[in-house]
Amino acid sequence: MKIISGGVCAAKGFTASGVHCGIRKNRTKKDLALIFSQVPATAAAVYTTNLVKGAPLIVTKKHLSNGVAQAVICNSGNANTCNANGIEIAEKMSLAIANELKINKDDIVVASTGVIGQPLNLSAIESGIPTLVEKLSANGSLDAAEGIMTTDVAVKEVAIEFTVGGKTCRIGGIAKGSGMIHPNMATMLVFITTDVKISAEMLSKALKSDIQNTFNMISIDGDTSTNDMVTVLANGMAENEEINSENEDFAIFMKALNTVNVTLCRAIAGDGEGATKLLECSVSGAKELEIAKKVAKSVICSSLTKAAMFGADANWGRVLCAIGYSGADVDVQKIDVAFKSAKGVIDVCKNGSGVDFSEEKAKEILLEKEIIIAVNLNDGECSSSAWGCDLTYDYVKINGDYRT
Amino acid sequence: MKIISGGVCAAKGFTASGVHCGIRKNRTKKDLALIFSQVPATAAAVYTTNLVKGAPLIVTKKHLSNGVAQAVICNSGNANTCNANGIEIAEKMSLAIANELKINKDDIVVASTGVIGQPLNLSAIESGIPTLVEKLSANGSLDAAEGIMTTDVAVKEVAIEFTVGGKTCRIGGIAKGSGMIHPNMATMLVFITTDVKISAEMLSKALKSDIQNTFNMISIDGDTSTNDMVTVLANGMAENEEINSENEDFAIFMKALNTVNVTLCRAIAGDGEGATKLLECSVSGAKELEIAKKVAKSVICSSLTKAAMFGADANWGRVLCAIGYSGADVDVQKIDVAFKSAKGVIDVCKNGSGVDFSEEKAKEILLEKEIIIAVNLNDGECSSSAWGCDLTYDYVKINGDYRT
Repeated sequence: MKIISGGVCAAKGFTASGVHCGIRKNRTKKDLALIFSQVPATAAAVYTTNLVKGAPLIVTKKHLSNGVAQAVICNSGNANTCNANGIEIAEKMSLAIANELKINKDDIVVASTGVIGQPLNLSAIESGIPTLVEKLSANGSLDAAEGIMTTDVAVKEVAIEFTVGGKTCRIGGIAKGSGMIHPNMATMLVFITTDVKISAEMLSKALKSDIQNTFNMISIDGDTSTNDMVTVLANGMAENEEINSENEDFAIFMKALNTVNVTLCRAIAGDGEGATKLLECSVSGAKELEIAKKVAKSVICSSLTKAAMFGADANWGRVLCAIGYSGADVDVQKIDVAFKSAKGVIDVCKNGSGVDFSEEKAKEILLEKEIIIAVNLNDGECSSSAWGCDLTYDYVKINGDYRT
Repeated sequence: MKIISGGVCAAKGFTASGVHCGIRKNRTKKDLALIFSQVPATAAAVYTTNLVKGAPLIVTKKHLSNGVAQAVICNSGNANTCNANGIEIAEKMSLAIANELKINKDDIVVASTGVIGQPLNLSAIESGIPTLVEKLSANGSLDAAEGIMTTDVAVKEVAIEFTVGGKTCRIGGIAKGSGMIHPNMATMLVFITTDVKISAEMLSKALKSDIQNTFNMISIDGDTSTNDMVTVLANGMAENEEINSENEDFAIFMKALNTVNVTLCRAIAGDGEGATKLLECSVSGAKELEIAKKVAKSVICSSLTKAAMFGADANWGRVLCAIGYSGADVDVQKIDVAFKSAKGVIDVCKNGSGVDFSEEKAKEILLEKEIIIAVNLNDGECSSSAWGCDLTYDYVKINGDYRT
């Protein structure tokens, strides 16, 4: 299993593109992206659990009811959510791209991301579609990844090569993240492509299982978005024997999918709105997996812990506090906490009480860009990680006036 | 029922004081407070649900098991939490003040607030106690209120006069808030005194009922503190006929208690760490009270909504988003949202979709210091309010380096 270039175009038969069509005011920012499979692909998706759902999610869910898709279209700059005509617009957007690609409109995954509650300019999208299709290319993943960015600073793409039954297979993905990131049983916008041959049922099973430990374990700001969605398109062009049970090939595919997802999770968390640091809370020694997950997520969501990390302040009491209100059944008297980074490890709490440590060494560790908050519950064998970022002046700045 | 001055000394028989004893480095900040009742009082308290509990809470809970207390001692600058010797220190602090006051050590409410996980300097407290007792005065409420402040900017005190069975009664309270404020089944530090004669059982019933709609409905930052506590001391010196059932007198007392608590809630929320605005989310038209409460609290906790309010940006989509992920059973298509302040009201969302509104007028409304986010679920008769504050650069500044 090796990391390769190419993002969503790494797998056989996939092309992609991205253009500026006029939804975003800044003409240097792409705002429309397309991913296309040469042949119809098996498709699976998961969606936000927010009761307020973006119109594109409702349309996509209908389109994917037969487990087949051939293209993904996504605009940034407008979420097409809480608009009275949202579903109609999402359907027209699907129809326009399907007509241009000469494929079935029900084989379109449609997505939107950006501000909520402002009418989406369909004519901008329709005017951009001919160029979008014309630019489709096997080198287009980066353009597509740029097309779905909102307040993201960094492009998020990844691809992996692996072998199933002697056949070389590839899987790749792009993502947008940044703000309103606190996925719950689903996630932000992530589009994954693979040339693996896999049944719709097994593809869905793989995706639903993996996101519990990847996208559902990140949080930027505690706000579960209305437009979260992850989709996987598997077009079978690697010509492996179809995966249709939980066999060895499925395990290999799960590992590849997990590698793609963890990479995108870390990229999303590290590029949270205003973030200067990627935080990982790594919990071990839990008596149940759910306890490890609850604790990890509670710490990663704590505003006070996030602000302390921004200030490189080893204020571990806030970590203990977040563990205590997590709702998880833990024995406080057994908890150990350490901070880790490329500069080393420092123990700050043993058995629920503070230990003497060098503030100087702690500062050196916490000034790094990637910090691990290591929690050992000393109460069992289960472990879990959650990812997030620090809380900074720039988060407030970006969100104090996002619409203008 | 009228608002009067005097805070925790407004009720007959109560005196208070506050001094600097040396826990906080800044000698101009008081760090030790005392409230004393001339006679033993009926006492009730509620505590944080955080599994990590401050040592003083454990000691206070033991002391209040007989429903009687006569004095409250509280230091700021150190939470006495996650310290191996915390309980021993809290007990010694109780003993020292009891000896000086010549009362039973089991009649002491002991509390601490400040940084977690650093040893509490008992000798500073012991050295401050003689002056603290010497300074006890019927004008001492303000000193005591100052003594319990941490990052609070404003002193929080209130008192109410009312009549029970022809007797003039008074109730007053002081509070500290500011950060790590997301009370759950309990609250931050609040000390209430009253001269009403009421049984321990009814006092506890009144307190536990009222906090569900007051302190449990505020959030500054989503972090439920380890040291949250509200206590009420009722010394009976108003000489009303003892309240020992849910009669008319109890209803009057509940109203007085609620007025005190709502006033302190608003004071705590408006003085959240770094806050420039008091936010109230007022939810009406819910089919169940729990739905109204969940929706109100979800909106008030949303980092994105809080940042938008800081920027005076009418980004109502974030309000809808927070309602959608609240976990409450709502019909999104029925929801109306308006923003209100002293400058007027503006409707921004009807039936779950945006309506045209003047951005200029919205800005004028949102530039005020007190903002109401009014949500009508149009689905029933229940209503609820939650209080919080905006998310600002100063919140990040205060918490990026709190310990130094």
